[in-house]
Amino acid sequence: MILTVTLNTALDITYTVPALVPHTGHRVGDVRERPGGKGLNVARVLTALGYESVVTGFVGGPTGAVVRELLAPLAPHDALVPVAGATRRTVAVVDASSGDTTQLNEPGPTVGPEEWAAFLASYDSLVREAAAVALCGSLPPGVHVGAYAELIRRARAAGAPVLLDTSGEPLRRGIAARPDLVKPNAEELAQLTGGREPLRAARDARRRGAHAVVASLGAEGVMAVTAKGVWHAIPPAPVKGNPTGAGDSAVAGLLSGLVDGLSWPDRLSRAVALSTATVLAPAAGEFDPTAYEDLLERVTVTEQAVAA
Amino acid sequence: MILTVTLNTALDITYTVPALVPHTGHRVGDVRERPGGKGLNVARVLTALGYESVVTGFVGGPTGAVVRELLAPLAPHDALVPVAGATRRTVAVVDASSGDTTQLNEPGPTVGPEEWAAFLASYDSLVREAAAVALCGSLPPGVHVGAYAELIRRARAAGAPVLLDTSGEPLRRGIAARPDLVKPNAEELAQLTGGREPLRAARDARRRGAHAVVASLGAEGVMAVTAKGVWHAIPPAPVKGNPTGAGDSAVAGLLSGLVDGLSWPDRLSRAVALSTATVLAPAAGEFDPTAYEDLLERVTVTEQAVAA
Repeated sequence: MILTVTLNTALDITYTVPALVPHTGHRVGDVRERPGGKGLNVARVLTALGYESVVTGFVGGPTGAVVRELLAPLAPHDALVPVAGATRRTVAVVDASSGDTTQLNEPGPTVGPEEWAAFLASYDSLVREAAAVALCGSLPPGVHVGAYAELIRRARAAGAPVLLDTSGEPLRRGIAARPDLVKPNAEELAQLTGGREPLRAARDARRRGAHAVVASLGAEGVMAVTAKGVWHAIPPAPVKGNPTGAGDSAVAGLLSGLVDGLSWPDRLSRAVALSTATVLAPAAGEFDPTAYEDLLERVTVTEQAVAA
Repeated sequence: MILTVTLNTALDITYTVPALVPHTGHRVGDVRERPGGKGLNVARVLTALGYESVVTGFVGGPTGAVVRELLAPLAPHDALVPVAGATRRTVAVVDASSGDTTQLNEPGPTVGPEEWAAFLASYDSLVREAAAVALCGSLPPGVHVGAYAELIRRARAAGAPVLLDTSGEPLRRGIAARPDLVKPNAEELAQLTGGREPLRAARDARRRGAHAVVASLGAEGVMAVTAKGVWHAIPPAPVKGNPTGAGDSAVAGLLSGLVDGLSWPDRLSRAVALSTATVLAPAAGEFDPTAYEDLLERVTVTEQAVAA
């Protein structure tokens, strides 16, 4: 199975309003709720692709109960660890007139030392069964900033390859623990290394400890900087749609490709086809399976004649 | 006891952000939750004033469970009726830079015919024990637009005086059922009668069936148009603060004054002192008891030499 970790799970709430006008009142016409947090999204895509996946992280309070209830029919196995505080909400306000989204993210529950210890005990037994592990998203309050570094070391000690998808100081610390793969976007990569040029920044991240770096570059696809070479993969044509969850779908593509022992070009094709099919799907965070199958053959992967 | 009815209860969530910028992401620093809906607010103020109060209406789902949990320590007796759908959330986004609030209100659960019948059975037994009844706020989906008219007739049949505080068509239909008192604000009154001038509009509302009309006029206090005369009550000086809940506090003042058999001028003094003390309190919807006691002596009530 593939294990995804979401320390700061969320109840994702989407409100559609005719137009968002600050400092006025709005009647929300359409309310949608879904289980959220990057690792949960990754696991949903893996499950849809036919991979057995297990989700862990923290869940608590009335919002946490709703997250578990909404997750149950979606098939990833729920190994979430209870926490006394309440799982955070994220509120996305979609302005129907422009299609733009305004996002409000709660900080999440404060995790205590016993809760962290209970999580580690559960995690240690899960990684022993995992073909791969993905560590995804922000840290909730109370969890130490080196948490991902600690989880990377424990997974590697158990022999499980680890992908890290986070940002800021948790990413910096995590990279030093030598994860198999990091998947920053261009902004996260620039923030990490101070360099705006993705190839240079990715090389810098490798020097800091990441075995491989796959940078997601939005409409320009992804760039992989690995011990075996440097590749750039792009979709056949630019697409319009909702980019929510596209990065999480790319992570699912990379992880499943790793577990299947695919070559780097094939892993990147899968990542780009999945993220593009996610942008094309009408519902945020879902992917269009027909578009995925079609795109898989049409992603262009180019090896760059440069040193990694 | 005093019965307050909130058919569309709410979980009121307040997010404080440094500044609300549409179409961007926000990390919410401060998250607050409180049981909401006008009748619940009225009951909290009544309880703080020492009156026994009972709240009814609908409550359901995970948000409804939170509303009940938050309500429990606040002392109004909980006679809320379970509904299969989930109690709505209201999200107030407070922009810390300006103090302005952007409000997002969910529609609320759809109430089915059996649920409405269960509510009516419970209501009929509650009104028999009630010294006064307040019907407050918007109707949830599924409840017929003449619901307040039906509840007014049933309360009056049981001998309980009724105050109606709603807007739009439910207010229009409710007034035709001859409530003892309606408490529109200037905008609701204008919307009801088409007249912008409050005295004329209030007289019109009386002709349509309301025995008495108390119009809340914001900083200009309240105006009562009754069978016994017309009064205007104003606070000693304009105040600055958060007007959330000020109208609900005025309702609590009017209801408690009715139960105590006070004269109209004394009822209006109580309503204005309570609503002003609510604007002055730091927490939205609370009132400052010291300010209330002080203001009570200093509200100016003037009888208008005009026909009601």
